Order: sequence, then C-alpha cells, then structure tokens
Amino acid sequence: MWKPDRLSGRTLYQQIADDIEQRISYGEFPPGSLLPSERKLAEQLGVNRSTVILAYAELRSLGIIESRSGSGTRVSKYKWGATPRHTPNWHRYTEGGSFLPNLPFLRRIREALRQNPALIDYASGELAGDLAPVEEINHLMSEKHYTSYLGYDNPQGYNPLRESLVSYLKQYRGIQTTDASILITSGSQQSLYLITQCLLSPGDAVAIEDPSYYYSLPMFQSAGLRLFRLPVDDKGVRPEDIRSLYKKHRIKMVFINPNYQNPTGLVLDDERRIELLDVASELGLPIVEDDPFSLTAYDGTPPMPLKSIDPIGSVLYIGSLSKIAASGLRVGWMVAPHAVVERLADARQQMDFGLSVVPQKVASQFLKSPYFQPHLERLRMHLLYKRDLLIEALHKELPDLVSFAIPQGGLHLWCKIIPEVNDNKLLEEAIRRGVIMVPGSVYGSDSGYVRFTFARPSAEEIGPGIAKFAAALRSVL
Amino acid sequence: MWKPDRLSGRTLYQQIADDIEQRISYGEFPPGSLLPSERKLAEQLGVNRSTVILAYAELRSLGIIESRSGSGTRVSKYKWGATPRHTPNWHRYTEGGSFLPNLPFLRRIREALRQNPALIDYASGELAGDLAPVEEINHLMSEKHYTSYLGYDNPQGYNPLRESLVSYLKQYRGIQTTDASILITSGSQQSLYLITQCLLSPGDAVAIEDPSYYYSLPMFQSAGLRLFRLPVDDKGVRPEDIRSLYKKHRIKMVFINPNYQNPTGLVLDDERRIELLDVASELGLPIVEDDPFSLTAYDGTPPMPLKSIDPIGSVLYIGSLSKIAASGLRVGWMVAPHAVVERLADARQQMDFGLSVVPQKVASQFLKSPYFQPHLERLRMHLLYKRDLLIEALHKELPDLVSFAIPQGGLHLWCKIIPEVNDNKLLEEAIRRGVIMVPGSVYGSDSGYVRFTFARPSAEEIGPGIAKFAAALRSVL
Ligand SMILES: Cc1ncc(COP(=O)(O)O)c(C=O)c1O
Ligand SMILES: Cc1ncc(COP(=O)(O)O)c(C=O)c1O
Repeated sequence: MWKPDRLSGRTLYQQIADDIEQRISYGEFPPGSLLPSERKLAEQLGVNRSTVILAYAELRSLGIIESRSGSGTRVSKYKWGATPRHTPNWHRYTEGGSFLPNLPFLRRIREALRQNPALIDYASGELAGDLAPVEEINHLMSEKHYTSYLGYDNPQGYNPLRESLVSYLKQYRGIQTTDASILITSGSQQSLYLITQCLLSPGDAVAIEDPSYYYSLPMFQSAGLRLFRLPVDDKGVRPEDIRSLYKKHRIKMVFINPNYQNPTGLVLDDERRIELLDVASELGLPIVEDDPFSLTAYDGTPPMPLKSIDPIGSVLYIGSLSKIAASGLRVGWMVAPHAVVERLADARQQMDFGLSVVPQKVASQFLKSPYFQPHLERLRMHLLYKRDLLIEALHKELPDLVSFAIPQGGLHLWCKIIPEVNDNKLLEEAIRRGVIMVPGSVYGSDSGYVRFTFARPSAEEIGPGIAKFAAALRSVL
Repeated sequence: MWKPDRLSGRTLYQQIADDIEQRISYGEFPPGSLLPSERKLAEQLGVNRSTVILAYAELRSLGIIESRSGSGTRVSKYKWGATPRHTPNWHRYTEGGSFLPNLPFLRRIREALRQNPALIDYASGELAGDLAPVEEINHLMSEKHYTSYLGYDNPQGYNPLRESLVSYLKQYRGIQTTDASILITSGSQQSLYLITQCLLSPGDAVAIEDPSYYYSLPMFQSAGLRLFRLPVDDKGVRPEDIRSLYKKHRIKMVFINPNYQNPTGLVLDDERRIELLDVASELGLPIVEDDPFSLTAYDGTPPMPLKSIDPIGSVLYIGSLSKIAASGLRVGWMVAPHAVVERLADARQQMDFGLSVVPQKVASQFLKSPYFQPHLERLRMHLLYKRDLLIEALHKELPDLVSFAIPQGGLHLWCKIIPEVNDNKLLEEAIRRGVIMVPGSVYGSDSGYVRFTFARPSAEEIGPGIAKFAAALRSVL
C-alpha cells in the first residue's frame, strides 16, 4: 500500500490529500461513498491522526469530500457528479509567483517548533517572553481615550510615533533627524523589503556581509538582485573590499549590520567605520545600516551607528523595537532622505496601506514613558546572565568540540563546531533530542557553525538545552 | 531668475533643493557661505515658506547644507571641501525599483488632503471617524492582562483571531471553514498583494471588473500581470465574458468585488453568481472574491458571498474590518486552501514578519464582543442617512448634470457627469473650492464619472460639499 514519503519536500498531509484525490478520480472511492475514519487511515499510513485530519480538511476545503458529524467523511457527490468540474490546481499556483519561499532549513525549523512547542528554542531570533515589557505595555494600553483616530493613516507612519523617534534617535543613537525623514515599517524586515523592491532593480548588484542575516532572506533573490560577499573578520567587514566590488561589479548598495552583528555578534571596528564612510562618499554609494541590537550592549554603552557620523548622507538607517522590546509589536523605522521616504511610503500604501495605528500608538507612548530606560537596564542584565549561562554550558558539555567569540551585546552566540559535521543531520538529531538552533549555512557561511540565540530560552533551559545539543552532536560525529 | 515649475511632475521642494545643490556645485555659493533665509528665498521663488523649509531640510539630510540656530543656513564645508565627496544620487534610486508608484491622481489627492485638512473629503474610501467603534475598542484595550505574548507570532496570523473568524464567517457570511484555512493580512490590500506576488507570475493574464478598485492599484502591473476587462452592467459582470477571455488569453485568475462594488455600488446578480461558479469550475479557474462591504447592507440583509455557495473550492475569499469598523486597524483575512495559506504566510514572513499581535487581539475581542452587532446596526443607519443626504444634495445642486444608480450598501456613490468634462480640471477646481472626490478614470472607466465616498464626510459637510462641487463643475464646463 502507498505510504507518504518523509524525505520528499512536500508535507505529509499534502501527499495524503493528493493521494486520496487521485484515488477518488480513479474510481476507487465513488461519489457519495464513505472514506476510512481518520484514526483508521492514520494507522494504515503510519502517521499521526492530526496529519490525516489536516489532509481531510484540505480535501474538504477543495469541495472534494464532505464530513457530517455522526456520519463520517464521504466523497462529495456534487463535485464528482455528472458534469466535469475542476477545482483550480492550487498546488501549481503555489509553485508560481515571483516571490521565493523561505530557505528549507528555516521552514523546517518553523515546522518543528509548531509540531513540538516543548523544544528548547535556541533558534528563534528574539527575546524570551519574560524579557518583553509586557506589563508596561499592558499599562500603557489601558490608559483611557487611547485610540482616537482609526482611519487610514499617513502611509509614512503615525505622526506622534515619528516625533517620539526624533527624540529617541537623538538621545540614544546620536542621530539628528526630523519626522519628515522617518518611515515607520513592520519591523526592520519591511524596511529591508521596501528597499529591495523600490530602490533597486532586477539585475542590480549589492554587497552583503558574509556570514549575515541577509543570506537567510530569499527576498534579495526575489527582487532579482545579485549578491556579493563582504567577508567578516574579527573587526567586521573590510572597507577596501567594497571598493573592489564596486570596481568589478558596480554594486549599487551595501547592507551592513555593524553592531553585534547577526549571526556573529561582532562589532565593526571604529577605524573601519570612518574608512567605510569615506569609501561610500568617494563612490556615491548608499549604505543600509541595520541596527536592531545596539541598545542591548551589556555594559550599557552601545556602539554608535554609522548614521551618527555620516557627514554627507550616505546612510539609510534602520531600527526596530523587536530586539530591545517585543518582536510581536512589529514596529520598525527607517531614517532616509525625504525623497526616499516618500517613494517607499507610496509603494507600501499599495502593499498593505501602512502599519496599524494601534501598535504605533503603543510604541510611541512606550519610547516616551519612564518605563523605557529601566526596561533596557533590566534587559541588559538578563541577556548578560543568559550569555554567561550559555558559555558555561558550552565549556562544560563540549570543552574541545566548539569555539566562539564572546559577544558583548545582542541575542546570539556564533559557535564553530570544530570537527566536521553535517548540518542537516545535526539539526534533525537536535530536534529529536528536544533542542533546536540554526545551522550556520543559513547565513551563507560554510557549514560547521551554529547560531545559538541565548535570549530566547529561559535561564533554566539553557544548560539542559546544551546538554541535549552536545548529545546530538556527539551522536552524529 | 529660475522659478520652480508647478506643472512638472516633481514636487516644488525637490525642484528647489536640486536647484540649490546645482548652484552650490557650480560655485555660486562657496563652502561655508550663507544661504538666503527661508523667508527671503520663499519670496524670491514665489512659494510658501514651508516649501523652502522642506527644501532646506532635504539638503540638510544630504549633508549639503548646515543650519545652526541663530547663525542661519550655510553650505557645508565638509561636504564641499577638498576631497571630492558624493552623496548617493537618491533621486535616481527612487526612480528605480520594480514596484510602480501610485497613480498620479491618487498621489495628487493624498497631497491635497495633506496640505489642506479642511477639504471636504469625498475621496478617502473609508468611514468617518465617528462611525468607527472607537469607544468600544478603547474599552476592549483597557481590559487587563491583554498583551500576554509579544514574540514573533505565527505568520499565518494570531490563533485566537483566526478562531474568532471561523465563527464570524459562519454566522455572518455563511462560510464554513477552519482556522488552518485562514490567513490574517494587513487589510484586504495585503491579501491582494500576496496573491499577485506569490500565486501569479509575470506575464500571466488576469480578469478584473471594469470599472473597479483594482484599476487603481499599480501593484497588478508591478507584478507583471496582463489585465483584461470584464465590463460591469447593472447586474455586474457577465460570466460568458470570462469564458471568452479564457479562450483568448488563458486568464489565470478572476478578481471580483461582487457586493456593493467599489466604485459602482452594484451587487452581482444571483443567477450570474451560479453561472460564474459554473464557468470557474468548468475551467478550473480561481476566483478572488473581495468582500469588504457586505455587512453595510442598509436593510440589514447582506448579499451572501460566492464563497458560501462555492461547491468545489474555486474561490479565494477576502474580508476586512476596514469598511465595517476601522481602516486604521489594518486587519483583513483570506480564506483559502491550506496549501495557499502556507505559501502566502511563508512569503509574508519575509516581507514583514506578520501583522502586529496587538490589533489582532483587539480585532479578535471585538468580533466576539457584544459590541459588534449593535455597532453594525448603528453603522448601517448612519450610512443610509448619509447616502440620502448626498442624493438630496445632488438632486438639488445638479438636477440635470448628473445621473447615478442608488446604492443599497457600501460607502460610495458612482456618479455620471452628463456633459463632457476634463477629469483633471474638475479635480483641481474642486480642490480649489474646498472639496475633493476621485475622478472615475482612476477606476479604469472612461472619463465623465466621479466617485463620492459619502461615508467619509460628516453629515453636516455633505450638502455644502456638493454645493462646492457643483460650483466647480459648472465653472469647468
Ligand atoms: C539583522 C537583522 N535585521 C532585521 C531583522 C528583522 O527584525 P524585525 O523585522 O523584527 O525588526 C532581524 C531579525 O532577526 C535581524 O537579525
Ligand atoms: C474593493 C476593495 N478591496 C480592498 C480594499 C483595501 O481595503 P483594506 O486593505 O483597508 O481592507 C479596498 C479599499 O478601498 C476596496 O475598496
């Protein structure tokens, strides 16, 4: 009997749904006939009952089968009656489109976390729930007369939030700007997306750090961009590499995450910053500075952004509340010349009509509130504590199998696995043992690295998580 | 002396900024020299002072000039010093990108509303502020322990909202579905965007109503789609037209807004609905049903969606809170086969990482709350009242210059101007006289129509707004 293929790229339930649809169309199950119960089919196919439930739901949504409580699941008479009727071939539609799907590793990680929420999660690049300012936000939201205007808002972003950000940027990031130069986006992510869609054209060459977060974003390829690598050493990228990429490939833009870089945790060296800005101004080349992590600086003195010393306006600056407050708020911002802000705001109006005013109001209040500074201090202490727990656990569990630089800020630790190891096997084995992290190849690096987001698991989970990881690693070596 | 060109496509302040930049680079203003004061330059150029302020801000953000309070605005020494330094040519970047800008008429309308908030606004396709459930939402937001989880959420949407929507769709729209088949988006707009980006490929042909909202969305062209028209008569589109478009152009999808269509206010005839679904299933053709207006039915009995009688699953159904509650919440949804939902959720994760959980929580509570039904009843009464005020005003002010069908639901009235008229002149003259509406050509129709959104102005503004419009119309005939 047919069994779904666990190694194929398609999910089990889709394979099952397709199989049943074929069997129906071939007459194995005539119109109106009863299908096997979910439990029985699950047994036959050797899958979870929930997988069969999903397969049946899919077929039901396509009108191919019908379920009535009490009388089981039957082949739909209408669909399979006299006249030939065709459900659109949805699978073919989902395989079309110019926008590329996420990397297989990232989809696998998402699926694993969905299937087993008890996994110790070193993979999700975000804060643990108890590090977010939940109480503070609750409190701000409960204030009266909060939502006074609820119409389509300026697609550039809610005015009071842009005004709060002018002060925030000055006070915390040394950036002088005006509200006309600020665009509010759904996290840094949407800023990056808008830049790739609206300022760059298919075929354009851009430079990105290697390794970097940007490698995990097929959105760059979806926009038809050609990516060139800027290798990162312990001082960050080398500015002269930009010059040579420009000469060779006429790169149009440089994407940089200079402070506690994702995934390496590194900070771009001060001298290189000056040089980088010199090269940019010499070449008239825009730099996109993605700066979500700075305020997590464990010693309380965040590195200042390129934008704060950008003499002639080469830098598009991107910030976000995701890594310093709450990623679920989806509040990010870009500082850019007004012409750029206008172009992006105009485009995003067609994409989503702007960000909901509700979280923008919350964010605006939060940044101005007396909660913000103490929240940051608490956050830094906790991150430092968790970082140290992770380092301790790695030293204890894997004393001579790993090596790493110690990050001074941010959420991640970039860990080299010294012996040779297969990324895929290691990930699957880790999942099987109850822990999950991101294989380094997602970030464009050679295999043999993993990214641990120590901000995400609870302090109690950090040690046991690494014990599980160590067992997984040893078992696949 | 040079003056900015008011008829050029570029904004005045940009023209001024470019001019000054040129004059600096040509040595007219040497490094360190003082520029004219904002007031003086405004006088010289015959523009508002605020325009010059914006031009200077732009140049400041580019590092080209510097202002210090008390000592005026000077040409930056650093930028124009010894070494040649180049700010990126931001204007060229904003003209690149594969995503097309909004239609000129729509940008003009946005700009006019921004410049003069006192305009009587028949243009913004949304509810007046006092028709939104602001108090109710305030109340729901003030409930305690509201925001318990604030991490990256499932990109498919917040679970409790999807569950609330399962009940809502069953009770109000006759649609049976499960939360696995629901995708939450930033309004209907983002559902449409995701479909065009992820399910269709450049070069694909699609059919849209003529006139329709979709014509106002360059996003269709940005995705490289070829658009074919389905003319709308008083019963809506003709299903046989779909068959012939399919034969001729192999259309891949049909976009329909069957209930109180934007802009015509028409409802697709019952028999045609059945025929339409027959054609779709005969051809295996997907129908996108955009259904934001139904619950505004003035008599309280909304037309049911195609999706509720879709026997084999041809329909992707889209809904939204924008037109029945508040557009600034940015909460919309799509009902689709799970495979489609997964594909779109995966893509949107890269675009914006999903919708903020805060408005999703609010929306979920609101739909389940005892406020929802009374809100709808109040909304319908007010819309009917405003519609009647508009009709009365049109009869009074323009008895023999206009004709229109009377909408039974929705926010808009589609008004034919009987004598020949120039869209552009009429719009500019209306703005000059303090009222704004959308020229019909935005929706792909021949000129000679306008769309009045009577839901947007206050009841007190409706009569005076039409009086201004009538004066504008007569003056351009
Ligand atoms: C470097 C970097 N940029 C951008 C993002 C996107 O974050 P958000 O959209 O939540 O601000 C991330 C998230 O992991 C990141 O690490
Ligand atoms: C027919 C139609 N579809 C979609 C939209 C987008 O609305 P939203 O994204 O606010 O739900 C509109 C708004 O005018 C509309 O009229």
